[in-house]
Amino acid sequence: MKKLEIIGYGTAFPKNTVKFGNDIRYKIEKSETQLELAVEACKKAIKKSEISIEEIDCIVWASAVGVQPIPCTAALIHERIAFGTDIPALDINTTCTSFITALDMMSYLIEAGRYKTVLIVSCDVASIALNPEQKESYELFSDGGAAVILRQSEKDKGIISAIQKTWSEGAHSTEIRGGLSNLHPKNYSGKTEKEFMFDMNGKTVLSLSIKKIPDMVKEFLHKGNITIDDIDMVIPHQASMAMPFVMEKLGIPQKKYINLVREHGNMVSASVPVTLCTAFDRGIIKSGDIILLIGTAAGLTTNLVIMKI
Amino acid sequence: MKKLEIIGYGTAFPKNTVKFGNDIRYKIEKSETQLELAVEACKKAIKKSEISIEEIDCIVWASAVGVQPIPCTAALIHERIAFGTDIPALDINTTCTSFITALDMMSYLIEAGRYKTVLIVSCDVASIALNPEQKESYELFSDGGAAVILRQSEKDKGIISAIQKTWSEGAHSTEIRGGLSNLHPKNYSGKTEKEFMFDMNGKTVLSLSIKKIPDMVKEFLHKGNITIDDIDMVIPHQASMAMPFVMEKLGIPQKKYINLVREHGNMVSASVPVTLCTAFDRGIIKSGDIILLIGTAAGLTTNLVIMKI
Repeated sequence: MKKLEIIGYGTAFPKNTVKFGNDIRYKIEKSETQLELAVEACKKAIKKSEISIEEIDCIVWASAVGVQPIPCTAALIHERIAFGTDIPALDINTTCTSFITALDMMSYLIEAGRYKTVLIVSCDVASIALNPEQKESYELFSDGGAAVILRQSEKDKGIISAIQKTWSEGAHSTEIRGGLSNLHPKNYSGKTEKEFMFDMNGKTVLSLSIKKIPDMVKEFLHKGNITIDDIDMVIPHQASMAMPFVMEKLGIPQKKYINLVREHGNMVSASVPVTLCTAFDRGIIKSGDIILLIGTAAGLTTNLVIMKI
Repeated sequence: MKKLEIIGYGTAFPKNTVKFGNDIRYKIEKSETQLELAVEACKKAIKKSEISIEEIDCIVWASAVGVQPIPCTAALIHERIAFGTDIPALDINTTCTSFITALDMMSYLIEAGRYKTVLIVSCDVASIALNPEQKESYELFSDGGAAVILRQSEKDKGIISAIQKTWSEGAHSTEIRGGLSNLHPKNYSGKTEKEFMFDMNGKTVLSLSIKKIPDMVKEFLHKGNITIDDIDMVIPHQASMAMPFVMEKLGIPQKKYINLVREHGNMVSASVPVTLCTAFDRGIIKSGDIILLIGTAAGLTTNLVIMKI
């Protein structure tokens, strides 16, 4: 086990929500920004952890889309919460599962003593790039952020096991094609505008997920000599309304996973840490529990982490 | 020491060059793309390593700017070199020093046995976003890519020590502000076009670097009980024409560092691995040597890695 514990966490949501039927979705307004939301989540996490900024050894931005192409977004977070310090700042990205990837990777650096205390922040504001004509994604995605502070621990807490797999058969099933080198913003026009919007083929993603993920989970649990019965709660990426269907395929009973799709929608990279924070806040998970973080991301990538909290 | 060795590497450059005085700069033309350049570097690295793609355990994209906002660029590289496999793919970003950060971070996962063989690829094509009116950056930056394959090793080779520091006083000294959430491409116009271009204040970067980096290097070497005399060759980021001045401030004699600024320009994230590959190809470094990788990045971030190759 890579020993670490969560010593603080915080979430941030836009003021405004919209409703599609009974489903609530958060949308930033003009006065709100991705950076502000992320900073708010960081500040809450630092406050809850009761540590000072100087105790943080590394700031990790773990989101799908950044604030600007240069510098890396972690440097902009640094400017707002750690100005005047020399804390290293870096970005890790596997789109929707960036938080799980960052948690997984940083656990090795914490285990080895490189960093003792690490802040991971995930925040996405999909609403600015959604295509109103693509109902499936337009009514699913939502804006939000969450930050978590990890600390090396001597307690019986930490990462038990982790795995990531990427199947690029799904590389074009979830995309924003325009904005960087593939299609520089100078090419933006009425004709190309959709290339700069979120584009998802939910059916293709679901079909590839169902084909690949059950075997991956089975193999992962088997290798770790763990069963679903050993896991207290599953913290899934809030990928879509199809969550109950996917969970059934994975053999995870309804009482063992948290479904916030109606309440929150899919908050892209913030989805997993927001679900984790919500589970803490609502008393759904508690100290000593074994949790499974699971998520699919554009790629198609899937990440799994088993953690004793 | 985190034991690993470089078992393959490859570089890729655009066909066309331009000259500013005696300085050569590479520029992609319309038929060339960042993704193609990166894939070419990966294929060369795989060929040189004499391994099959299935032997690679993780694909890491370590560049300043990606191909498209979603998915992460490593998934697009995966599609071109590892289609049909389930190799995990992820992005790590500290702008110009992304390669050093990725090497540093992945060394922990290799050391712990999570991954045995890792491909890191860095590629940037600054030319598509340079501002012709900003002579300093327009005549400095250049396009290119490099890939390196690392493998866990039982030999006396690997990462001896590493450090990263970020000082966000420099967060706005090197920027591309538009393209992502801060300024979505829908805001592109004749008035805003410069916001979507590379913008660097070289003097501010140099002044902050000189203020911070000599102390950082001194402290790093002191802690590792290493002197400049113990290092066979310094592989620097080809940041600017000021390299001899900076190296002098760091106490590194001219024969101990590689200066390719005239030949190559600043290739952003590709700069450090291209310099490393060039040093191998020209016999400037050889098996058993101790090298120091050093670079500054937008942020301002500085990374140092001491490695026995």
